[in-house]
Amino acid sequence: MNNEMLLMIPGPTNLPEPVRQALAQPAIYHRGEQFAQLLEVCTEGLKPVFGTESDVLILTCSSTGAMEAGVVNFLSPGDRVIAIDTGKFGQRLGTIAEAFGAEVTWLKVEPGRAASADVLDVLCAQVEPKAVLFVQNETSTGVCQNVAALSEVANSHGALVIVDAISSLGGIPFQMDEWSVDVVLAGSQKALMLPPGLAFVAVSERAWRAAEAARMPCYYFDLQAARQSAAKGQTPYTPNVSMIVALAEAISLLQAEGLPAVYRRHQQMGQATRAAVQALGLALFADPEFASDVVTAVQSPEGLDSTELVKRVRDDHNILISGGQGELKGKIFRIGHLGCAGIEQVRRTIGAVAASLVEMGYDCAAQAAAEAIDEVVANF
Amino acid sequence: MNNEMLLMIPGPTNLPEPVRQALAQPAIYHRGEQFAQLLEVCTEGLKPVFGTESDVLILTCSSTGAMEAGVVNFLSPGDRVIAIDTGKFGQRLGTIAEAFGAEVTWLKVEPGRAASADVLDVLCAQVEPKAVLFVQNETSTGVCQNVAALSEVANSHGALVIVDAISSLGGIPFQMDEWSVDVVLAGSQKALMLPPGLAFVAVSERAWRAAEAARMPCYYFDLQAARQSAAKGQTPYTPNVSMIVALAEAISLLQAEGLPAVYRRHQQMGQATRAAVQALGLALFADPEFASDVVTAVQSPEGLDSTELVKRVRDDHNILISGGQGELKGKIFRIGHLGCAGIEQVRRTIGAVAASLVEMGYDCAAQAAAEAIDEVVANF
Repeated sequence: MNNEMLLMIPGPTNLPEPVRQALAQPAIYHRGEQFAQLLEVCTEGLKPVFGTESDVLILTCSSTGAMEAGVVNFLSPGDRVIAIDTGKFGQRLGTIAEAFGAEVTWLKVEPGRAASADVLDVLCAQVEPKAVLFVQNETSTGVCQNVAALSEVANSHGALVIVDAISSLGGIPFQMDEWSVDVVLAGSQKALMLPPGLAFVAVSERAWRAAEAARMPCYYFDLQAARQSAAKGQTPYTPNVSMIVALAEAISLLQAEGLPAVYRRHQQMGQATRAAVQALGLALFADPEFASDVVTAVQSPEGLDSTELVKRVRDDHNILISGGQGELKGKIFRIGHLGCAGIEQVRRTIGAVAASLVEMGYDCAAQAAAEAIDEVVANF
Repeated sequence: MNNEMLLMIPGPTNLPEPVRQALAQPAIYHRGEQFAQLLEVCTEGLKPVFGTESDVLILTCSSTGAMEAGVVNFLSPGDRVIAIDTGKFGQRLGTIAEAFGAEVTWLKVEPGRAASADVLDVLCAQVEPKAVLFVQNETSTGVCQNVAALSEVANSHGALVIVDAISSLGGIPFQMDEWSVDVVLAGSQKALMLPPGLAFVAVSERAWRAAEAARMPCYYFDLQAARQSAAKGQTPYTPNVSMIVALAEAISLLQAEGLPAVYRRHQQMGQATRAAVQALGLALFADPEFASDVVTAVQSPEGLDSTELVKRVRDDHNILISGGQGELKGKIFRIGHLGCAGIEQVRRTIGAVAASLVEMGYDCAAQAAAEAIDEVVANF
């Protein structure tokens, strides 16, 4: 597969060969001992990634389905909640809550910045929310928020903390129990190195108690049903068994590398990408204090439509990076560095971006960028 | 894969080798020309299977998710609907409608029988329902209902017709447009020869008009959003791309065999299984007039717990058949004959069932059963 496109977008990511081979295994039945063991391996294997000893449930859906599950199981129509709007993905949890009848107060954050715990504190005092909803990693802007700090504030006001860790889990550390987060959502196609199609929800004991009183309607995403089935080694509805076989393989890849090493690899890719981009003479979009180690957003140089750059990098170099979304379309481009990628993939990508910019008539320091990556690696 | 278990259950089914290889392909990005073409191939390829020229939407979820989508997009809380309870699966659409606030009137049918169009007619006159919900193929009892007849009655009362064809689509003919069905639901892991994890919803123009006024909450399963994205060659949320690559492969297998031949193969398997079971001296559970060509339910002989038979067939012959569910547990067993299976798999399964029954001390005519299969094949 030498002509496989290198996916340097913030998910889906390239698939490791063992994961692809696992997907091609013969079908197994989802109500039997073999599947029960597989489910156990997966849920137990995911717990350290979430940093929890609570329940981790595996859903057959994309990540947005897990977001819906994370809202409708714990809230009732009319509940007041605060949703932190950090961008396209930060908006989604709040939008789902509104669709199911919650009264949402938005904490709007300037794109490229993280929410302030102090501002959240003031807003919580005014709103007295049942829950606070936010992302760890805002994929649209390359911002990684301080979950511990935001969770502490929400907890101090007695609010449930519901966090979308979809694009970060497995690439950036998450400590659900230590940070007192109640509901954490993740997806298969990011740092977990699988195709899209599975999503994960971790649920605290406090959240389970809230679920008993929650009155938003749900059926497919009923997590209490999922928990009951999980106790018997099953899922309430037929799961994507092939993906769960592949999940076990992906988890064993994470275990073989070791989670601390996995996180360090992502940190190194993040640092190297940021250093290289700046060495190229380009400006980072995200607040450096909250720069994400799984995706870097870069401001388009004056006069450049980033959509053109993305196309050129794809067509000339067989590497896919991302443009901006919504209001940021054309104004930024984004390099994803997560999953099974490493520093060599960052080098190739930066080289391709530099070459494409030069061809498009923009002066940029390709050599300096390569050296910046070397320096990060040498000092890491 | 000589030791691959033969799955003769009513789904999931064994995976053809080309489908498994398709699952193992490298990741492709879901917002681009390549994916748009793939999605087009799949939706166009599915339309003849549904018998429709209306929209067919592909969802990343199990079939129950499609059932939820088929309810919440077209109904409002408080709507009166009739749900035909033919068994475990017939119940589910109505249960979902109740969960989202519909006022459900149940038309309860004796297990093993199909609903009477006349009874439905009377009930529709009393209830004046917004919609009538039922299954084509009741997997739990091996009954295949007359969708055309039930749909005609519902239409005559102005009700939407929402049909679960999950375990039959691709194995038993469906003519959505000809039968004036409004919403049809299907899943990937049955006659479509894929793993579980994709589901399909076909929607009539009349149903789209109903959707505009429908007020049940939805987000992940918002079919209007799915329709808008589909027009751009996309899905609203990241789809299971690997499964869609495999779906294109499965569709091309169906096209290569030809749908009429596919249906005839299933008819032959159905006839052969029923003839063989009766030749063994066992009684069919389903009303012969409505016997399903994708799954045959068989009454356990006096004194036999079918759960034990299922285990023995599995452990001694590496063939998986199904027991009964709910109240039918132990009382019936079920043989699935759908997907990529053919008459040889039916022969092996009947042979294994006969041998297991003999070992368990039940007198049965194994040779007569084999001859009954030969006779069906000879006269087909």
